[in-house]
Amino acid sequence: MPKAAPLPPFHAGFFDLGSEDAPFLLSTGEALPGARIAYETYGKLNARKDNAILLYHALSGSQHAAGVTTEVPDTEDRWTEDCHRGWWDLYVGPGKALDTNRYFVICANYLGGCYGSTGPTSIDPRTGLRYGRNFPSIRSGDVVRSQMALVDSFGIDCLQAVVGASVGGLLALNTATMFPDRVKIVISAASGMRTTVLTRLTLFEQVMAIENDPHFRGGEYYEGTAPEYGLALARMISHKTFVHLDAIERRARHDIVQPDDQLSWYRVRHNVESYMLHQGKKFVKRFDANTYLRIAEMWLRYDPLGDAGVDTYEELFARSRDAGHHYLIFSIDSDFCFYPEEQAELVSTLERAGVSSMYLTVHSDKGHDSFLLEPELYAPHLNYTLEGRWKKSSVNDRVPEVE
Amino acid sequence: MPKAAPLPPFHAGFFDLGSEDAPFLLSTGEALPGARIAYETYGKLNARKDNAILLYHALSGSQHAAGVTTEVPDTEDRWTEDCHRGWWDLYVGPGKALDTNRYFVICANYLGGCYGSTGPTSIDPRTGLRYGRNFPSIRSGDVVRSQMALVDSFGIDCLQAVVGASVGGLLALNTATMFPDRVKIVISAASGMRTTVLTRLTLFEQVMAIENDPHFRGGEYYEGTAPEYGLALARMISHKTFVHLDAIERRARHDIVQPDDQLSWYRVRHNVESYMLHQGKKFVKRFDANTYLRIAEMWLRYDPLGDAGVDTYEELFARSRDAGHHYLIFSIDSDFCFYPEEQAELVSTLERAGVSSMYLTVHSDKGHDSFLLEPELYAPHLNYTLEGRWKKSSVNDRVPEVE
Repeated sequence: MPKAAPLPPFHAGFFDLGSEDAPFLLSTGEALPGARIAYETYGKLNARKDNAILLYHALSGSQHAAGVTTEVPDTEDRWTEDCHRGWWDLYVGPGKALDTNRYFVICANYLGGCYGSTGPTSIDPRTGLRYGRNFPSIRSGDVVRSQMALVDSFGIDCLQAVVGASVGGLLALNTATMFPDRVKIVISAASGMRTTVLTRLTLFEQVMAIENDPHFRGGEYYEGTAPEYGLALARMISHKTFVHLDAIERRARHDIVQPDDQLSWYRVRHNVESYMLHQGKKFVKRFDANTYLRIAEMWLRYDPLGDAGVDTYEELFARSRDAGHHYLIFSIDSDFCFYPEEQAELVSTLERAGVSSMYLTVHSDKGHDSFLLEPELYAPHLNYTLEGRWKKSSVNDRVPEVE
Repeated sequence: MPKAAPLPPFHAGFFDLGSEDAPFLLSTGEALPGARIAYETYGKLNARKDNAILLYHALSGSQHAAGVTTEVPDTEDRWTEDCHRGWWDLYVGPGKALDTNRYFVICANYLGGCYGSTGPTSIDPRTGLRYGRNFPSIRSGDVVRSQMALVDSFGIDCLQAVVGASVGGLLALNTATMFPDRVKIVISAASGMRTTVLTRLTLFEQVMAIENDPHFRGGEYYEGTAPEYGLALARMISHKTFVHLDAIERRARHDIVQPDDQLSWYRVRHNVESYMLHQGKKFVKRFDANTYLRIAEMWLRYDPLGDAGVDTYEELFARSRDAGHHYLIFSIDSDFCFYPEEQAELVSTLERAGVSSMYLTVHSDKGHDSFLLEPELYAPHLNYTLEGRWKKSSVNDRVPEVE
């Protein structure tokens, strides 16, 4: 399958979920007549099967978290060079933050994705045609249930940890509260517990950007031109929230305005504009607009209370308290995708519910993307927490000798 | 002309600028074969002609600053009910912040505008057709020169003050530094001195939103459908920076998702999304996309140094120092269109150049739009400054009796 399997033991595979006879039921009530989930694993599952970590990727990530993979089946031209290096390669491997000498790390592409999991680009077995606009809406609970079915397939009862940053952090929180007995540690970086107004506005702009593209046609574009300008604009809107503005300015400094930067009327003349346009255009090569919309919608309609069947955050986190979960929460001080206030709200809600947690703010000039770029800021606490050395009870009982 | 002239003495008129034989030359080197500037005035010009205030509107504003005007010629259907009440009616009038019992206030629509000044919707006398895409790019220096020609037409040598908020503040700064001997006081609220990276990104997204609309066709849409979805998305992107997020949430609370909120695939289900979509759609009725692009481009390419023919901000503000200008600068603490840091940068640059200034931060939960909504936060200092009671020299020379 992949040409270069970088981290022995490394495995890439597909997991089949449901079938035409036993469809996979979605939160919305719709049904998928069978789906498959593309995944990779790193490290070895031990005999007791208690060293597994489920890692969720972020919006445009994939199952390919670590090492180098130059080919993935059924991804057409989307598996570009930008995808070859695992998105968390700096964090997953022997001796790294998620130490594959000790842990068995599982990472899977979201249901609805475009990197091998069944999504809008896949063939609908009932019609023999691509799903396109008919691919159903996906909720975060669906992604979680699809990935927990994959966890089942390994015979794993309880995960040592569920880990996610950004949108992945939202899914980690879902997992812990939908399946409280199957998780010990919850690690969430640069994420939150609900979709804020600002995030809603930004995501809705992105939805509109794609919807407005004349080639989108409700999602029926596979036979023609893809809605490239719409998807590029969506990426530009989100990229602005991922990368610190100083870094955009710095990176753009070497950008030269290209002849094809000319739009129908406006002429790009500033390197920052040219840089953003190229970020958008580059992204279009590696991503599918229908998948983008499914994930944006999942984020817009994020509802951990509904997914867990409770009415309040207090009830939600009572599940974590009763199951004895421990949360490790990271804020990035320069993040303006998930603002530090969002993690602060999560932590104070956890504390009120009596859930064990540890909360760190990393100081970085990289903005939201720090979680992808600076393992040294996260690794020590990730190691320490995964080893179970956090035991808060003893900390809380401590009384200073000298005050 | 206007049905209801609200503030006697009130005047609405058009000023002609250049002609086919003596075209108005633009900063880019292009020429306009005559243009007209739509303006309104409030109050009376005194005999010495030294009580005039030039007021600049913001991005989507107009010459109609005060009172109620139900009709403006040559605005087609764009003069909607949203335009009837003057945009600064709370601030301009007898006894108000700009006291029309004392001052003669002039407000004009930007060159390139769509509320009566010559712009892309106007007829090109050379072809008999609307300008459309052929309407040239406008720079802020061009808007200032067009409005100073209007000031000339009143026989006014020196303005008591030039006033602007938001983009209007950028123009006020231009005016003072391009025509230092013709201004005494410069008042800038919720504005800055350059286009920041964040503003550039946000504006560029808006440009792309319009460019991507299939009906835009480089600006040649007057014979067909206007690029309504593109312009609506542009407005949504900017509206997010004008209104405090809490206020958006509050206002959206009463919004009901409408059947026509259905896009080609995405279904609007949240009242915040519906609210934003309606803001966008409402705006489209009262504004022209080509004008929007001209103003966005003017803001993107804002260059007060180039307009004043200097190389550094030090030189720029040396002009203000040498002319004895006084600046009154307002920040809004909850502003995330022009962030308070931008006014702080302006003030410290003024101070380094030895320019007299006074600097206030108003505390508001209304965000950038506070400058339109809360006259009580601004009026006392506006009155005080316009009366000349700021005289800093005496303040700076003061020594406390008791320390």
